[in-house]
Amino acid sequence: MNILIVYAHPEPRSLNGALKDFAVRHLQAAGHAVQVSDLYAMDWKAALDARDSLDGAAQDRFDPVLDARRAYDSGRQSPDIAHEQDKLLWADTVLLQFPLWWFSMPAILKGWVDRVYANGFAYGVGEHSDRHWGDRYGEGKLAGKRAMLMVTTGGWASHYGARGINGPIDDLLFPIQHGILFYPGFDVLPPFVVYRTGKVDEHGFGALCHQLALRLDTLSTTAPIPFRLQNRGDYEIPALTLRDDLASGLSGFAAHRRS
Amino acid sequence: MNILIVYAHPEPRSLNGALKDFAVRHLQAAGHAVQVSDLYAMDWKAALDARDSLDGAAQDRFDPVLDARRAYDSGRQSPDIAHEQDKLLWADTVLLQFPLWWFSMPAILKGWVDRVYANGFAYGVGEHSDRHWGDRYGEGKLAGKRAMLMVTTGGWASHYGARGINGPIDDLLFPIQHGILFYPGFDVLPPFVVYRTGKVDEHGFGALCHQLALRLDTLSTTAPIPFRLQNRGDYEIPALTLRDDLASGLSGFAAHRRS
Repeated sequence: MNILIVYAHPEPRSLNGALKDFAVRHLQAAGHAVQVSDLYAMDWKAALDARDSLDGAAQDRFDPVLDARRAYDSGRQSPDIAHEQDKLLWADTVLLQFPLWWFSMPAILKGWVDRVYANGFAYGVGEHSDRHWGDRYGEGKLAGKRAMLMVTTGGWASHYGARGINGPIDDLLFPIQHGILFYPGFDVLPPFVVYRTGKVDEHGFGALCHQLALRLDTLSTTAPIPFRLQNRGDYEIPALTLRDDLASGLSGFAAHRRS
Repeated sequence: MNILIVYAHPEPRSLNGALKDFAVRHLQAAGHAVQVSDLYAMDWKAALDARDSLDGAAQDRFDPVLDARRAYDSGRQSPDIAHEQDKLLWADTVLLQFPLWWFSMPAILKGWVDRVYANGFAYGVGEHSDRHWGDRYGEGKLAGKRAMLMVTTGGWASHYGARGINGPIDDLLFPIQHGILFYPGFDVLPPFVVYRTGKVDEHGFGALCHQLALRLDTLSTTAPIPFRLQNRGDYEIPALTLRDDLASGLSGFAAHRRS
């Protein structure tokens, strides 16, 4: 398959860099075509602004939503944005790899999302009616593709457990896995998470590579997180609240997975 | 009081810009000293990298954690970082204002957090022992100060409700309110959230300003979100899991608020 790794770490000789290099070699050895968007090496522009359209703002004030749509529809997006969109369309599977900084992705990767996920490409797709609220949450231009997070953190697994002080890792990643990946259509695989990065020695690194290889070898067969599709009857439209008879008594992120 | 507004929107004539201008005027009229970090106007550098230390990386490879610490301890941080830290120390109350982009903050604001929240300033503070796991989650250099989010989103309130498809707004904001604000010591006030920004006309804007004024007038008296302190007995150390006898049966973000 075609695999895109979007990678965000400032130091090539870091643990993240070594894991990325291992993943590329391992996937290529298995016969896959691999592209890497190494955001730091690309000096990726993180801040979404009027320069993201070759025509600038249409009116005297910049509108992040409408100007992105106009640039997308007219083929006048900044070339760095269009190039990343092409890579996403090329890929069968997308891996987002990053260190968890302040319980989310590094700014440079957030800026990749903010800019590449343009209106017309990742949102604002499909009809809005009383039965269908846009092609999103399981539908969209990236439907049929798979995605997985590869995340490292200095904290302990217990700190990110069900009652750990940082909050459960799956809940911390929900805005990314559900809100950024499932939203434009990806099937989202359970994340590959590395804890206590400061304690990873040569032996530990070998073990991590072994675990990662197992995940890379099963990218096409691993069951995705069973997030609920928006437009297939589970949600009231346009309120977009879960139907009363589904997951009764549940609220919060957990309600949006099929049981 | 001294109030710092950290503001992230690319267009001054946006709804966010108008709300920020209103907040500044209203707070100044009430006698407060106000500083604004207008990140787009400052052309804030979003990507954390080796240039954040005036000495670059200490070794042949850049370490985001150790190099930030060395620069902080030796007074060799990039001046833009040190200047923002000074503003945080000056402030009694900090407002983070931004549009919700992909269920989190814009990249430029995340980059403010990634870089200003240096090792030694916002984390890595205080002793680590079997009774105290660093000055964090309610303790730290920013303890005694208050913080509040001002967030706008195009989506409807119901989409962000208890069973709304995006997930509850309080849970989406937990990584910011608990992980970024409470972590270095802030008392965190309930957020000011504006929904359906596309529908805000002149009348709606007047109503919003009225609601915002009520929040700004009560910054010093509003009860903070009752997040649990890390080092006062609620958590096992070093596992940092909530004690079994507290919030029994609860897991996830909700367990970290006192009932």
